[in-house]
Amino acid sequence: MPEHTTPAPPTKAVSNGIAPPELDLPYPDRPEIITSNLLKLTELASDQRKRLIFKNLVTHLHQFISETGITTEEWMNTIQFLTRVGKTCTPIRQEFILLSDVLGASALVDALNHPAVGGTTESSVLGPFFTDDAPDLNAGDSIASEGSGEYLFVEGYVRSTSGNPIADALIETWETDSHGFYDTQKAIRDIPDCRGRLRTDKDGKYSYRAVVPVSYPIPADGPVGDLLQLMGRHNMRPNHLHLVIEAAGYHKLTTALYPEGDQFLASDAVFGVKKSLIVKFRDVNDEAEARRRGFPKGGSFKLLEFDIVLASKEEWSATQAQLQKQ
Amino acid sequence: MPEHTTPAPPTKAVSNGIAPPELDLPYPDRPEIITSNLLKLTELASDQRKRLIFKNLVTHLHQFISETGITTEEWMNTIQFLTRVGKTCTPIRQEFILLSDVLGASALVDALNHPAVGGTTESSVLGPFFTDDAPDLNAGDSIASEGSGEYLFVEGYVRSTSGNPIADALIETWETDSHGFYDTQKAIRDIPDCRGRLRTDKDGKYSYRAVVPVSYPIPADGPVGDLLQLMGRHNMRPNHLHLVIEAAGYHKLTTALYPEGDQFLASDAVFGVKKSLIVKFRDVNDEAEARRRGFPKGGSFKLLEFDIVLASKEEWSATQAQLQKQ
Repeated sequence: MPEHTTPAPPTKAVSNGIAPPELDLPYPDRPEIITSNLLKLTELASDQRKRLIFKNLVTHLHQFISETGITTEEWMNTIQFLTRVGKTCTPIRQEFILLSDVLGASALVDALNHPAVGGTTESSVLGPFFTDDAPDLNAGDSIASEGSGEYLFVEGYVRSTSGNPIADALIETWETDSHGFYDTQKAIRDIPDCRGRLRTDKDGKYSYRAVVPVSYPIPADGPVGDLLQLMGRHNMRPNHLHLVIEAAGYHKLTTALYPEGDQFLASDAVFGVKKSLIVKFRDVNDEAEARRRGFPKGGSFKLLEFDIVLASKEEWSATQAQLQKQ
Repeated sequence: MPEHTTPAPPTKAVSNGIAPPELDLPYPDRPEIITSNLLKLTELASDQRKRLIFKNLVTHLHQFISETGITTEEWMNTIQFLTRVGKTCTPIRQEFILLSDVLGASALVDALNHPAVGGTTESSVLGPFFTDDAPDLNAGDSIASEGSGEYLFVEGYVRSTSGNPIADALIETWETDSHGFYDTQKAIRDIPDCRGRLRTDKDGKYSYRAVVPVSYPIPADGPVGDLLQLMGRHNMRPNHLHLVIEAAGYHKLTTALYPEGDQFLASDAVFGVKKSLIVKFRDVNDEAEARRRGFPKGGSFKLLEFDIVLASKEEWSATQAQLQKQ
């Protein structure tokens, strides 16, 4: 009779199925035992690389806590800060990348993974403003709508380390307008602006019209902005042009060019500037030349000439193998 | 005429108002310059304690990245993991505390801030299941509804380090039911269960009825659960009774009692167990005694006797002063 059926007992809370480890784990009665138990437990990871990473992470996390003697209140503030960083992330804003950027972690990871070798152009941080909808342009076209800023003409060659031209290399480039905003930061963004995709010709040459970018602040309205305030650091990036260059048989390069003279070059909030990426603009005051270059108005523009050297896939692999050995 | 009014120019992006630092910051052309520039920048924080913390944090973060030679992909996975941890946090779930717990950070911070001194009862982790709505009970009352689990009677004295009874001490206690769930984890929680607030009598004695708690898993359905899987670690806590004890003139103690014999004692997922907090249950098989203790049914129950020693505020301050000197 159904009314007498005993109800099913509530499900018991169950573990993830992993058994207690067969390790000598003394009770963590003293701080140093907590650390040594954690280090023993990192041996349980089946993957050797993960073991190494967990072990190193635990070592430095515990050293940070022990060496600073962090208080319970300071630790809770840290937990709350990290929670806010997570909550600030949206599909178009990555506050943890920003945190990694201002703590030099992004630049350090990039530097370790992309060492300059054999005369190749050095890398710089990608940043959060790349989009995949930049328009395809022809040589000499403008990436910026009229009125976006002071005229700039950019040209140069893409070459291999032995100096051979690289034809049909794809260049993606993006920059701020003269107000220091990327198009994605505008309230209304009907079509992409100040960004474009173009290809080198048979001689490896590229050229496009742009505007002079200006220095700009990274977001100050979130927890990372608050952290920079606490640290007494400004939140500015020097002006720059982003470039990503891809070509068949070559390692993809993510970099940026930094015009000389910007007051934030040495203290870039995200540590992206390298000496070899600092460039000089040439003033051209010649109305005929301005027209010839495609600028619709006025008699002057800035000229930026910059050649790019890519590592072949073989050169890149050899460098990586070298890095592994160190 | 309004139609000829020039629209206001768009606002230029502005900085947080902090000037570029007057520091020698060479361009970070090599990894080690990124680190040394960051360390110089930590000098800008106006607060001495924050300077020390930032400097130590940067040192260990950069050492972690350099020593492991973390790849770009591994770093992006780390960023995405931390973002998921943030996104998993809700008003009733704190995944960053859980992360801190499984990495031994919470236990280490607790151990450093609450060293055992002068025979006082040791501390343990608070955990995420404390609520402030536990019912006020009289001595001998039950904190658990009938049917929640195997009968347990808890009693003991709260004393000072010199052995004097502490009257009117407030004890808050909470535990799982026999299925390994706290009341807050149930789909429906009309009233608090398996938790209560009581006070010691004039002799410092406390007593209450409870149920034998059982071991239980910390949440496995979020990023911290995934991390434990990757690390090859189980996600169990040994069974325990939470206790927070407060008394006028004494330092507030947050601790927990861990019954001996649990298979997860040595490998507690959150490193909360200390040897001095492991307790023994006594089997009582005496129907008259069970009735006298207030248990409504059966002829047996477990008995837990545990005395608690609190540090006076003066003793606590002296210990903290000692810690500062180290």
